[in-house]
Amino acid sequence: MHDAPDAAETAAMPGFSLGELAKALGARLEGDGGLRITGAAEPQDAGPDRIALAMKPEYAARLAEGRALAALLHDGADWRALGLRGALFVPRPRFAMAHLTRALDPGPDIAPGIHPTAVIDPSAEIGDGAAIGPLVVIGAAVRIGARARIAAHCSIGAGAEIGPDALLHAGVRLGARVRIGARFIAQPGAVIGGDGFSFVTPDKSAVEQMRETLGQVSIPPRAQGWTRIHSLGSVQIGDDVEIGANSTIDRGTIRDTEIGSGTRIDNLVHVGHNVRIGRDCMLCGQVGIAGSAVIGDRVVLGGQVGVNDNIHVGNDVIAAGGSDIYTNAPAGRVLMGSPAIRMEQQLETYKALRRLPRLLRRLEAAEKAARHKSVPKTGDND
Amino acid sequence: MHDAPDAAETAAMPGFSLGELAKALGARLEGDGGLRITGAAEPQDAGPDRIALAMKPEYAARLAEGRALAALLHDGADWRALGLRGALFVPRPRFAMAHLTRALDPGPDIAPGIHPTAVIDPSAEIGDGAAIGPLVVIGAAVRIGARARIAAHCSIGAGAEIGPDALLHAGVRLGARVRIGARFIAQPGAVIGGDGFSFVTPDKSAVEQMRETLGQVSIPPRAQGWTRIHSLGSVQIGDDVEIGANSTIDRGTIRDTEIGSGTRIDNLVHVGHNVRIGRDCMLCGQVGIAGSAVIGDRVVLGGQVGVNDNIHVGNDVIAAGGSDIYTNAPAGRVLMGSPAIRMEQQLETYKALRRLPRLLRRLEAAEKAARHKSVPKTGDND
Amino acid sequence: MHDAPDAAETAAMPGFSLGELAKALGARLEGDGGLRITGAAEPQDAGPDRIALAMKPEYAARLAEGRALAALLHDGADWRALGLRGALFVPRPRFAMAHLTRALDPGPDIAPGIHPTAVIDPSAEIGDGAAIGPLVVIGAAVRIGARARIAAHCSIGAGAEIGPDALLHAGVRLGARVRIGARFIAQPGAVIGGDGFSFVTPDKSAVEQMRETLGQVSIPPRAQGWTRIHSLGSVQIGDDVEIGANSTIDRGTIRDTEIGSGTRIDNLVHVGHNVRIGRDCMLCGQVGIAGSAVIGDRVVLGGQVGVNDNIHVGNDVIAAGGSDIYTNAPAGRVLMGSPAIRMEQQLETYKALRRLPRLLRRLEAAEKAARHKSVPKTGDND
Repeated sequence: MHDAPDAAETAAMPGFSLGELAKALGARLEGDGGLRITGAAEPQDAGPDRIALAMKPEYAARLAEGRALAALLHDGADWRALGLRGALFVPRPRFAMAHLTRALDPGPDIAPGIHPTAVIDPSAEIGDGAAIGPLVVIGAAVRIGARARIAAHCSIGAGAEIGPDALLHAGVRLGARVRIGARFIAQPGAVIGGDGFSFVTPDKSAVEQMRETLGQVSIPPRAQGWTRIHSLGSVQIGDDVEIGANSTIDRGTIRDTEIGSGTRIDNLVHVGHNVRIGRDCMLCGQVGIAGSAVIGDRVVLGGQVGVNDNIHVGNDVIAAGGSDIYTNAPAGRVLMGSPAIRMEQQLETYKALRRLPRLLRRLEAAEKAARHKSVPKTGDND
Repeated sequence: MHDAPDAAETAAMPGFSLGELAKALGARLEGDGGLRITGAAEPQDAGPDRIALAMKPEYAARLAEGRALAALLHDGADWRALGLRGALFVPRPRFAMAHLTRALDPGPDIAPGIHPTAVIDPSAEIGDGAAIGPLVVIGAAVRIGARARIAAHCSIGAGAEIGPDALLHAGVRLGARVRIGARFIAQPGAVIGGDGFSFVTPDKSAVEQMRETLGQVSIPPRAQGWTRIHSLGSVQIGDDVEIGANSTIDRGTIRDTEIGSGTRIDNLVHVGHNVRIGRDCMLCGQVGIAGSAVIGDRVVLGGQVGVNDNIHVGNDVIAAGGSDIYTNAPAGRVLMGSPAIRMEQQLETYKALRRLPRLLRRLEAAEKAARHKSVPKTGDND
Repeated sequence: MHDAPDAAETAAMPGFSLGELAKALGARLEGDGGLRITGAAEPQDAGPDRIALAMKPEYAARLAEGRALAALLHDGADWRALGLRGALFVPRPRFAMAHLTRALDPGPDIAPGIHPTAVIDPSAEIGDGAAIGPLVVIGAAVRIGARARIAAHCSIGAGAEIGPDALLHAGVRLGARVRIGARFIAQPGAVIGGDGFSFVTPDKSAVEQMRETLGQVSIPPRAQGWTRIHSLGSVQIGDDVEIGANSTIDRGTIRDTEIGSGTRIDNLVHVGHNVRIGRDCMLCGQVGIAGSAVIGDRVVLGGQVGVNDNIHVGNDVIAAGGSDIYTNAPAGRVLMGSPAIRMEQQLETYKALRRLPRLLRRLEAAEKAARHKSVPKTGDND
């Protein structure tokens, strides 16, 4: 889009020989293992120092448009015929991508040590080898694990605790007494430990009645303000969790909001107060989970999925993007739609819906015809 | 989730006697009013210095699993039989939670006075007793009320005005000339007073025609750029308003965007330019209100509800989570679905929809049978 | 809402004569071109130094409630009869608003030069005439164009490049190696260049199978963690792009995520990794675009629209607010609903849906009658 030289090339990238990369990826090497690799690229964009990612035949076909000397290929590909000098082969290419990209990631640019502009309470404990960026604020009695990297403008509230090897990108907010395990990653602007959204009216509110009656509100409108329920709980997060940019995880009311180990959360996701999320879940962009919902293990929620408050989503549930989960979902269920139902049933309903307008026209014609037919009949004698 | 000692217990919590707590809650005390209470907990988790929250029989049954000496109980519960030494009784337990949690909330850790790293324009006026945290930026001619607490990394634009007793958590952004009443709370990362999203094309655009014709666009595609309409207005917010983490409230084009007193807004909510929201509304997580919409008083919008631009949502409207409100909604209406219609009607439609695929199969079978039957008839002589 | 003096009036506003404003707007002037104008207002709110915006007869009718001496009027309006001393007329009033508001916008209050509290890497290049606000952090090898204005608390990662005349509001985060063209605007809290959300399991996951089978998952639940695919790519943005408050644009995996020139993005929008967005698009509040989707030119997505990963949305597509786009959309298509289909077809479906419950009742009655009728028939001999 710009004619400027490729900024990515000017940034310091770790270099590898193709043989070293093969070892890092657990890949089978064919050809010249001494080729120097400094990055990865799509086949058509790859220069001679990039490994081209060509794990499908249609990608490999585009190698001729680029200048790659080495590629990650699908099994059976003829690397010599593709004009390469070396190639790597892996049984599950998508999984190899994880190793490859980790090896080639230059990582965030947070200088080792504590930047002089950081504001750190003297009672805070910072682990060995941690890197604290400029203008970071760390409150009283905070404990940060070894080798943590905390980028510019992060703030960490009093009594918060983060395990070893954490990476907090710029502007992350951790509230007071938040506790997080090892290898935590937070993308820029993530907020963990804001207050829960919990209010109550002096007398029963129209919303409470609406929920009891499914829509029949008879309480006359009345001015009664919302009184705040404070969040005495905090947030507890396991090991190997990642939270996306500008996502928000609220503290609990009495106990902590909980996120289990291995769970990954995308950008702009909202997790309400008291929510419990299990292990190894995946919450895609803009998912919203209302207060006190319980999410099992290995649950996958597509983008913009909404989960009602106080419901239970079982282990291994998968919900398609945009689904609204209003009611408890049993383990293993694949959900879709609003309200979310079994995906197969929802797809059948969508199909039927497409045919509904024509159906209505046919039926009305049939009814009209029937009425027309029956009118003379009233005068008949049979 | 961690074996580390409970961080919440190490943080300074205000202590109360059970008798003092009874007075703060307007609760009836039974038993030992001298018990020392430093926090609240769920029955199974409560230690001897915590008041257990056991306002329903099923919660009270779990008191035996914990070590609580005092509890907040439902009327009629036998506190002695539950092994307690004291108990509090309230007519509306959910409401008592508000008082209880306020009493026990240690509050944010913002040191009194102005932190030396804060960057404050000399023309700004800071009220008595205000606490301004580290690395806060306050612009020219800003006026901040008495006892305001402004956490780390907040920025407040020129000419903004905040009433007394405000609490701005870390990283809140207030734009220029924003005006806010008393007792305002903003969660981390909230943005109040970003520019409105308002653009215009030199000639009528396809969108304008689409809106006029409900979908029939005949204007040929044409490259014409969007020209920006600047936001000369700002944002006006009443008293006792709370805005959630990473929510965004845009400034108005000519006049101010307005949010009435007592309105509570959850995380990741978007309020567009020129919107007017009334008093005592509740907007749950990820609600989006497009430009120039008008929302009445006491309106409750569930999570992820969308409100179209330029429409009017009447007083006391309640919309279920995920609803899309495309058209004006009369006062008191309970809404659900996309497009949102009366909840009762929507629930009936959902039920019918579940039966639609089977209905279609029956109808097609019937039509086939009828056709089959009518074929021989054509040859009949009757 | 407050009785305090109008903060907007105390802020320094550039002043114009009505004649100068006419020239800036390309408007036809009638009456006194020497009138002093310091701002714009709605007719009923306008003081004598404000130009009233009264481009429709119903707005002009409210001029009597205010004190305006000059107005922007619809063609044919009689400005003398409306009590004015001068008036401007334009062929397309909505477009004139763009020029008018730009002329009257006091702009952000970022002092020229580099604030002493900014933390700027010595290898960064800052263009002539740039204004860098307090507590800004700029990384190594960053290049910032001439006349850029960067507000408080922004952070810009190593190797990022921004063209001339950029405006970054408070707290914007630009990741490493992000490249942006001329005249870029980012509202507060926008995050450009967070890591993509891309994970893989060692073996085929239930989600992969669900996608292949449309909902039939037979893989038994199994604990297998998500392994992270790192984002080696960055984000490339063209000229004249605007990104809204707290929106997030993720970096690409191998190549860059791309946003074309002239595209405008509202608040809380999520753009996933590898996404390609064309020129002059408009993405309204809370739109979410999943990874690797491709969006054409001049596409308009209403609020809360979701776009599935890996699909293609053609040029000039318009999608109504709340639509979920699960499948490729051809150029020029106007979409609505979940799943999104042609708007006209969707509106017809909605209408049919409203009639469905009654239809079902009629059909059941008819079937019951038919069964009732057919019962004796079984005994008939004809």
